[in-house]
Amino acid sequence: MVPGDTSAVERGPWHYGADYVTVYFEGDLARLSYLVPKPFKVTDGRCMAYVCEIVSVSHGGADMVASEPDRTLYQEAAVGLRCEYKGKAGVYFPVMWVTTEWSLLRGLLNGYQKRLADKIAITKIHPLNPGLKPIGPGSQLGGFCVKGGQRTLSLRVTVKRAGAPSDLPVFGVTFGRRAFPRTDESQGSIEEAVEILKSNSRSSDVWLGDGTVETTLPIGEPKATIGASYRTGFTISGSRALE
Amino acid sequence: MVPGDTSAVERGPWHYGADYVTVYFEGDLARLSYLVPKPFKVTDGRCMAYVCEIVSVSHGGADMVASEPDRTLYQEAAVGLRCEYKGKAGVYFPVMWVTTEWSLLRGLLNGYQKRLADKIAITKIHPLNPGLKPIGPGSQLGGFCVKGGQRTLSLRVTVKRAGAPSDLPVFGVTFGRRAFPRTDESQGSIEEAVEILKSNSRSSDVWLGDGTVETTLPIGEPKATIGASYRTGFTISGSRALE
Amino acid sequence: MVPGDTSAVERGPWHYGADYVTVYFEGDLARLSYLVPKPFKVTDGRCMAYVCEIVSVSHGGADMVASEPDRTLYQEAAVGLRCEYKGKAGVYFPVMWVTTEWSLLRGLLNGYQKRLADKIAITKIHPLNPGLKPIGPGSQLGGFCVKGGQRTLSLRVTVKRAGAPSDLPVFGVTFGRRAFPRTDESQGSIEEAVEILKSNSRSSDVWLGDGTVETTLPIGEPKATIGASYRTGFTISGSRALE
Amino acid sequence: MVPGDTSAVERGPWHYGADYVTVYFEGDLARLSYLVPKPFKVTDGRCMAYVCEIVSVSHGGADMVASEPDRTLYQEAAVGLRCEYKGKAGVYFPVMWVTTEWSLLRGLLNGYQKRLADKIAITKIHPLNPGLKPIGPGSQLGGFCVKGGQRTLSLRVTVKRAGAPSDLPVFGVTFGRRAFPRTDESQGSIEEAVEILKSNSRSSDVWLGDGTVETTLPIGEPKATIGASYRTGFTISGSRALE
Repeated sequence: MVPGDTSAVERGPWHYGADYVTVYFEGDLARLSYLVPKPFKVTDGRCMAYVCEIVSVSHGGADMVASEPDRTLYQEAAVGLRCEYKGKAGVYFPVMWVTTEWSLLRGLLNGYQKRLADKIAITKIHPLNPGLKPIGPGSQLGGFCVKGGQRTLSLRVTVKRAGAPSDLPVFGVTFGRRAFPRTDESQGSIEEAVEILKSNSRSSDVWLGDGTVETTLPIGEPKATIGASYRTGFTISGSRALE
Repeated sequence: MVPGDTSAVERGPWHYGADYVTVYFEGDLARLSYLVPKPFKVTDGRCMAYVCEIVSVSHGGADMVASEPDRTLYQEAAVGLRCEYKGKAGVYFPVMWVTTEWSLLRGLLNGYQKRLADKIAITKIHPLNPGLKPIGPGSQLGGFCVKGGQRTLSLRVTVKRAGAPSDLPVFGVTFGRRAFPRTDESQGSIEEAVEILKSNSRSSDVWLGDGTVETTLPIGEPKATIGASYRTGFTISGSRALE
Repeated sequence: MVPGDTSAVERGPWHYGADYVTVYFEGDLARLSYLVPKPFKVTDGRCMAYVCEIVSVSHGGADMVASEPDRTLYQEAAVGLRCEYKGKAGVYFPVMWVTTEWSLLRGLLNGYQKRLADKIAITKIHPLNPGLKPIGPGSQLGGFCVKGGQRTLSLRVTVKRAGAPSDLPVFGVTFGRRAFPRTDESQGSIEEAVEILKSNSRSSDVWLGDGTVETTLPIGEPKATIGASYRTGFTISGSRALE
Repeated sequence: MVPGDTSAVERGPWHYGADYVTVYFEGDLARLSYLVPKPFKVTDGRCMAYVCEIVSVSHGGADMVASEPDRTLYQEAAVGLRCEYKGKAGVYFPVMWVTTEWSLLRGLLNGYQKRLADKIAITKIHPLNPGLKPIGPGSQLGGFCVKGGQRTLSLRVTVKRAGAPSDLPVFGVTFGRRAFPRTDESQGSIEEAVEILKSNSRSSDVWLGDGTVETTLPIGEPKATIGASYRTGFTISGSRALE
């Protein structure tokens, strides 16, 4: 788990380009509190759930898209809760499922609660497929995540209208928690609340509409749902310990 | 293996939209002949090898991109040989690896020599990833296919220039062979040379350059290679028995 | 799909050694009838559902357990219904999920309605694991099959007592249906009711008890369940067309 | 990565029962030194490479073999080097490939250099399979591990004679290294040389013979190889920091 040339995880910063199908919703505030560790605090019950496909390379490692393409592409599914830390707004993801080893381990180093999915499937629309129309009002999008014997997350979005990046709900920064527990008293351990160090964010191809979400996470009945689809790019250089 | 609503294979026609990384080359004519069954005949040693990602839906089944996205996306890798049948030019694929059950079985019904891959990986470039440049002269593309303990196919392409669909080498129609052998004298069997019934073809985003190809298929040393990248759409309604 | 040395399927006969977790039960007779094609007829509503791990080699191909071990091991899950054909009792499996390409294709050639599972998991008890007791009264066994976004079959067995092979419910022969449909009028097609040609059957390590079964197949509420665990070996040489 | 009921990793101790195919050999001493971090020191060039299947449960978690069988079974492949630490003999594994998330993360917590394999295949011989003989002189055993586009390890063993647990080469204790690096100056980090805390070891079903090993690890040409097959059980309670 040491970053470097022969490691499971390349040295950061890491660059990301992702295609999202997302549902924003309000969960049951009382239940959500159990999903967020101190020092973070759930605020208003606002949540997001998404499935996405991500092309990711480390800084200086762009040639891996050709030499080791399986080390530059993965799928991700997650549920995020709006939180605050000392008055600063953000989102905390109690769990984030991914489909590759390197996104699992890189995420754990940065403070995401990553887990390995068995399968994540997401709507793709190819512009030259004679049986498919380009995305627009009426388009149906969706995705799901399977782990073990369970479908842990399932989303559906019905597109109603084109949107702009500024139409997407804002959650603030991304919070996380780095944890590397001891298995014996003689060992050291890590447990740190962090803020993800994210930059270079930009989005495009925003579509908005209705959405539904089902998950095995105890979030209560999702209300006031908004469905969305968009492309996003960003850079993560690591995460900053908060305390 | 019966097409229909509850089957592994939906009824056709089937629509396809695909992103290809392809290497065209000349193989060893003597060796290639062993890879092509009668009544097809290898012509000039010209070959193609590709890896691609395909979004596919059956006619009338476009909503499955949202309801069952894992039934509309797969990866494919193949090696094809220029052949002729009664003077008609075409391509025959001695093997075509795919990543899903439904593309495996659908292909076998149509006459492709499909096999299930363990993994197919292909270069993807996301336009919003801050660490990647858009495809252009100098871009490196690649992909590979793994089955069992072997990397059965591996490709690399170095892009030199933009091209047009008309720049891509033409192989003619696609030939195949439907085979369903008997396991006992009492049974019937199928063994039919076929031509794939393909329509609605269109391509875009063509890039051309150099390429290399390695494969476990006995094709000799690849010569006179051309690398390419492009997007294609088409419809397959089935295949026509030739004899 | 041609059996032979370089094919996905070796030439038969094929030998099998399998470890089963099985639940016998009675389903809803009216619903079960929809799951069985002519000329077979559901009889009394008796069913079986199982998950198992199978070591299989072709006749003369025993050395593949060392040279290509991934071509000799798979997991299987299935639901079978007691049927009859012209007064002969047997079992028909409307679906049989497997984890490898070669067991999928070999099964389709023989007349099983095979499908590819995403995952099949089954209880294993290792005699040297310090945290596990050998199987006996009180032991819990189970297994499940996942395909796409669904857990298609899930079993639990509580062992009550040791048994003998003669204690296992008898269903008779195994019926099947070979199907290779046409995709165009010009093609031939196969659709044959068959009886599997099975020999060399022997069983051991039989344990009996209670069981539960959940499945996405429309079988009604399972009643009068019996749970079992056992090892079995047999040979299949192919299947015989019935009509 | 926090051990506990809803975590990827159950709290230890953890119990193991495993079936090994192993090749003992002598590697190139100069090359091996690059594979072992301080404070460990390669001694005489003796190595071991294995593939195995492991049934594992946490203490008090034996019922998971029935309720979540996919959380109690995995395959593992590894290469180990004979080392010493302050005069104490042991084995250090520069890499250990596994097939499940929970064995990956549990291993990282204990100090193993675990990586996720794409596939590990191992010879299995089923006693009731009519086409297989029980293991004995002349038996061929083998296995391999695939990750990305590479077969990272491949083993073959030809059995010559029955053996006893005392016939197996002894390497001493198991050394490891717990590492959880920082991604930012503000964070803590872990880097600890450890000794695995292993107890309850017992072995059975020992067979000995010749062996061959191929690996992508830079170990030089394997010499003086011994092949072996055996079953082992043990308990790991964690690992002890050495410095």
